[in-house]
Amino acid sequence: MRADDTLLARARERLFTAVLSDTLDGMGHRDQAFRPGIRPLDEDLVLFGRARTGLYAEVYSVEPGENPYALEIALIDDLAPGEVPVLACQGSPRIAPWGELLTTASVARGGAGCVTDGLVRDIRQIRAMKFPVFHGGIGPLDSKGRGKVIAIDVPVLCGGVHVRSGDLVFGDGDGIVVVPVEIERRCLELALEKVEGEDRTREELQAGHKLADVFARHGIL
Amino acid sequence: MRADDTLLARARERLFTAVLSDTLDGMGHRDQAFRPGIRPLDEDLVLFGRARTGLYAEVYSVEPGENPYALEIALIDDLAPGEVPVLACQGSPRIAPWGELLTTASVARGGAGCVTDGLVRDIRQIRAMKFPVFHGGIGPLDSKGRGKVIAIDVPVLCGGVHVRSGDLVFGDGDGIVVVPVEIERRCLELALEKVEGEDRTREELQAGHKLADVFARHGIL
Amino acid sequence: MRADDTLLARARERLFTAVLSDTLDGMGHRDQAFRPGIRPLDEDLVLFGRARTGLYAEVYSVEPGENPYALEIALIDDLAPGEVPVLACQGSPRIAPWGELLTTASVARGGAGCVTDGLVRDIRQIRAMKFPVFHGGIGPLDSKGRGKVIAIDVPVLCGGVHVRSGDLVFGDGDGIVVVPVEIERRCLELALEKVEGEDRTREELQAGHKLADVFARHGIL
Amino acid sequence: MRADDTLLARARERLFTAVLSDTLDGMGHRDQAFRPGIRPLDEDLVLFGRARTGLYAEVYSVEPGENPYALEIALIDDLAPGEVPVLACQGSPRIAPWGELLTTASVARGGAGCVTDGLVRDIRQIRAMKFPVFHGGIGPLDSKGRGKVIAIDVPVLCGGVHVRSGDLVFGDGDGIVVVPVEIERRCLELALEKVEGEDRTREELQAGHKLADVFARHGIL
Amino acid sequence: MRADDTLLARARERLFTAVLSDTLDGMGHRDQAFRPGIRPLDEDLVLFGRARTGLYAEVYSVEPGENPYALEIALIDDLAPGEVPVLACQGSPRIAPWGELLTTASVARGGAGCVTDGLVRDIRQIRAMKFPVFHGGIGPLDSKGRGKVIAIDVPVLCGGVHVRSGDLVFGDGDGIVVVPVEIERRCLELALEKVEGEDRTREELQAGHKLADVFARHGIL
Amino acid sequence: MRADDTLLARARERLFTAVLSDTLDGMGHRDQAFRPGIRPLDEDLVLFGRARTGLYAEVYSVEPGENPYALEIALIDDLAPGEVPVLACQGSPRIAPWGELLTTASVARGGAGCVTDGLVRDIRQIRAMKFPVFHGGIGPLDSKGRGKVIAIDVPVLCGGVHVRSGDLVFGDGDGIVVVPVEIERRCLELALEKVEGEDRTREELQAGHKLADVFARHGIL
Repeated sequence: MRADDTLLARARERLFTAVLSDTLDGMGHRDQAFRPGIRPLDEDLVLFGRARTGLYAEVYSVEPGENPYALEIALIDDLAPGEVPVLACQGSPRIAPWGELLTTASVARGGAGCVTDGLVRDIRQIRAMKFPVFHGGIGPLDSKGRGKVIAIDVPVLCGGVHVRSGDLVFGDGDGIVVVPVEIERRCLELALEKVEGEDRTREELQAGHKLADVFARHGIL
Repeated sequence: MRADDTLLARARERLFTAVLSDTLDGMGHRDQAFRPGIRPLDEDLVLFGRARTGLYAEVYSVEPGENPYALEIALIDDLAPGEVPVLACQGSPRIAPWGELLTTASVARGGAGCVTDGLVRDIRQIRAMKFPVFHGGIGPLDSKGRGKVIAIDVPVLCGGVHVRSGDLVFGDGDGIVVVPVEIERRCLELALEKVEGEDRTREELQAGHKLADVFARHGIL
Repeated sequence: MRADDTLLARARERLFTAVLSDTLDGMGHRDQAFRPGIRPLDEDLVLFGRARTGLYAEVYSVEPGENPYALEIALIDDLAPGEVPVLACQGSPRIAPWGELLTTASVARGGAGCVTDGLVRDIRQIRAMKFPVFHGGIGPLDSKGRGKVIAIDVPVLCGGVHVRSGDLVFGDGDGIVVVPVEIERRCLELALEKVEGEDRTREELQAGHKLADVFARHGIL
Repeated sequence: MRADDTLLARARERLFTAVLSDTLDGMGHRDQAFRPGIRPLDEDLVLFGRARTGLYAEVYSVEPGENPYALEIALIDDLAPGEVPVLACQGSPRIAPWGELLTTASVARGGAGCVTDGLVRDIRQIRAMKFPVFHGGIGPLDSKGRGKVIAIDVPVLCGGVHVRSGDLVFGDGDGIVVVPVEIERRCLELALEKVEGEDRTREELQAGHKLADVFARHGIL
Repeated sequence: MRADDTLLARARERLFTAVLSDTLDGMGHRDQAFRPGIRPLDEDLVLFGRARTGLYAEVYSVEPGENPYALEIALIDDLAPGEVPVLACQGSPRIAPWGELLTTASVARGGAGCVTDGLVRDIRQIRAMKFPVFHGGIGPLDSKGRGKVIAIDVPVLCGGVHVRSGDLVFGDGDGIVVVPVEIERRCLELALEKVEGEDRTREELQAGHKLADVFARHGIL
Repeated sequence: MRADDTLLARARERLFTAVLSDTLDGMGHRDQAFRPGIRPLDEDLVLFGRARTGLYAEVYSVEPGENPYALEIALIDDLAPGEVPVLACQGSPRIAPWGELLTTASVARGGAGCVTDGLVRDIRQIRAMKFPVFHGGIGPLDSKGRGKVIAIDVPVLCGGVHVRSGDLVFGDGDGIVVVPVEIERRCLELALEKVEGEDRTREELQAGHKLADVFARHGIL
């Protein structure tokens, strides 16, 4: 069940990927964190938004009369504020689906960031725009003739996680976690509770208490 | 055909790897960008120079009386201003062909940077010298008894790209692109033209135009 | 043979991983540098301490009544000042054995840092504490139900290097080098001598001498 | 729900991994086939039995007084007729948990075969015994001091599939499929039905009918 | 230029992949041999035919009303005698595009074999039909919901080689070589000449001549 | 210390790689077995001989006037009866250093087999000659312009094992084990003793004794 705006606002302010990942683990959803090779361009930015998926395929040519960017353009032009393109490239090291111009277009539509297991380029300009991008590598290659979007808003596997349009995507310096929309409200509520327990644990450890004792009291590590 | 000094100077000032990569794609040279695992030590430095290739082999011993650095020393001592050693190590994770002392010697000769798919060490000192190094990883291992240069100024494959001494090497935060010397002038001219088209595209996107419309007008993404 | 405190203090002040790696090479210990994929969270921090090993195994469940953190907690609670947990995870991309709370507990015990070929999380908080952590990747996943310590103070292979509790661990921006305790004193003495030779080499190269001449004089590259 | 003996006997006689895999796909269980790197020692033998899991960890020493084979021996000595040790080694290329002597002991207990993502050795002798072994590679290394069983009858991931003791394991030249015990009866019944549809499809294709027509009639490919 | 039927018949009878690969090397086409991971199901069968390409993309769902096999069926139903489906799956370990039913349909159309860098299943039945299949692995997984053909008769990269419909595909126990149709006649003629030189070389080596002498005479190794 | 001819003859007749690997483990030499990816062309042939090492480097051109096979030819022409070329290619998937003609030349010199972590070609002809070849893959590519021998009779790493000319190489269906020449006699004697213990263990297991009891009596698994 979707969270309401108040809960989303508190989640955005107080949560982070580690506590979300622990909470999802506790709810039995143990495959929601992207693999560690997917990194933020800027480790200080937080990504928080709803996924819009794009599925890439590797190609080796552009056919006559074809616009190889057609579906990618359609996805970006259709972005609503707070949405996040999740571009699944099967971890290809030769497709760079994201760059400065798509960032510029997304900012204009209120897009909340971008996630891809492919490459990103124009990193200096994107960083200057403070737009959160999580990527599988950095490289100057355009996708034209190398890859193209074959479907949008379909289920994808990206960075090892199944993502559907509408799922909540949360990213920070520790990585990316996807919260399935069906369990979103419960997950955010539980995570907010866990944050408080961690605060107490931290204080006791700082005071020099043994880990064994603190863990026995709070069950948090 | 080689570019003249004026064109080279404008290229150095205005170009970047992404636009060069797109231009080379358009000219049918689609394998000119290094694989994404080759990264700059300092993402803010630009590398621009002519390749001088060195081909490394893995070895497991130093034979009696052998100077294992002989050819590497010869290459560095022979550097002309603006040249860039391109040291191909087949992506070995156990050869660090580059470090502070070679950087110091190269700076003294006017070398423009270094590219290797092997490792680099002494990263703090190299960064302090503002010498652009692109590498396949960071590690403290000396190459002695692990790898040695077996030929210089021969064709090599480095980071997935075929490079010959004399080719133009361009590197920035997005990676490395190699411009074959035969098509250098035409490539730089076309890339400079493309930069202007991108400026117009960016402005229209910032003004909120739809990607589909902007792409239809300028054909640039 | 262990170094005395004076020698350790000089080593800590003057040495760095590259010169230690070269010295170990010269003593016939050629497999003492971690593979390049193990990186520091903060490239400016130096790690210097004695290893305390923890061996992780991948698991897929928590058995009823089991405390999956039991041995990890025991290791941290037993840390003496200057010790460094070395947590061997076989390079697993799904175990994050280190995070903010263990850092906090280690700081309270005088721990000198942490080394793991697994993942680390809570990177912002750990960086703020200036605690040196070397890791095999960054990710938000807790180890619970994914991995657990099955033995402490046993020989491990971590980042490609055999490490035993008591070995000296040295890390900086160039990576990690392990000095076996049996040869520690001799190694540190030789490395300190080598540092001086490198200083002379650097000065002559800065003065523009040819590498071939400088190498002929000092035998250092 | 478990199948009864009659259904198991028919399944053993008529089914094969491809039809089981398709059936499991249709039931929404899409991760039940081992990855292709796990191969049979003898492609003509069929493996059919119930899993008994053993979880291996990599180790680098044998501690004083330790019997490193203790749990592995316990698992084999406890085998009931028709059971199949499933030994999860995390795909390690240095652990060979299976060989001639364990095969001999398993045959004596009525074991139905062995599955491991680690290595197997003594392949000539095992083939001569016609005992079905599926493995992740072939090598002469004993597991002693390299790996040991840390738990038996716990959930494991082996060859990319989650396996629990009691699950049905089916292997042939095409690979291995695991049928979770909860859906076993329904799965076997559906697979037996599908076999008949495939027979009709094959006959029509042999008669030269177009694939498009045959697929339109039977929906099987 | 295409070879005529007489030349094709002689090529089929006398040539093998190694001599074709050497000949293509000599003509400057050095990337025409499939990577070694692509193996024949039956090492004794020879594959000789013209490529018909199919490009697969990984997918994670079947959309409502979609026939995921549509283009694959179209390709097979359109096969002319002597043609060889070349199914490029980007080396995916989860797509098995080939199996018994497609083999049966291809045999009925006179297809000459199949090449894929994906998986094959039903290996016992295919071997019994003596139909040459070269594959990237063996596994029981159906492609439905995992991968689908997104284009046929487009350029593909398969097993590391660029292949276009119409290119000549030659496979045997040593692997697969692709002869671009533009240079086909010249390549086959040169290869047939080289076969004779190899025969003389072999005879002299069998007679005990030194390799150095034989190579000096014939230039063949 | 080298074994005498009588001991070598008994070793050849009675030993196999698994018992040699166990014996070397017991002597503290735990890195003597090739990695599992190196396989025999013919699993029924035994390889037994003394290593002659050749170190390959990857190259990307043949320089004018160069004979790229010079050192490889020298190695083969210098083979004494019972010797085994061990050709270290750093696991390259693009160098095939071995084929029919080198096999023919080696047979003429009494060579005992070949080991390489590169590729082999002409597999049908080599199998027909019953010459034992262990390889890292099968492919038709000639080494010319791809790799060349840069040194012979130097220490190499091949298949993960350090090998020197003169070391004893033993291969069978389970893989390859290298016995360093310094410990050869002791190793073979111990291995022959162990074979007898295994015979008793096997008999008791065949008689249905529990593994735990048999292992307690003989300490062999």
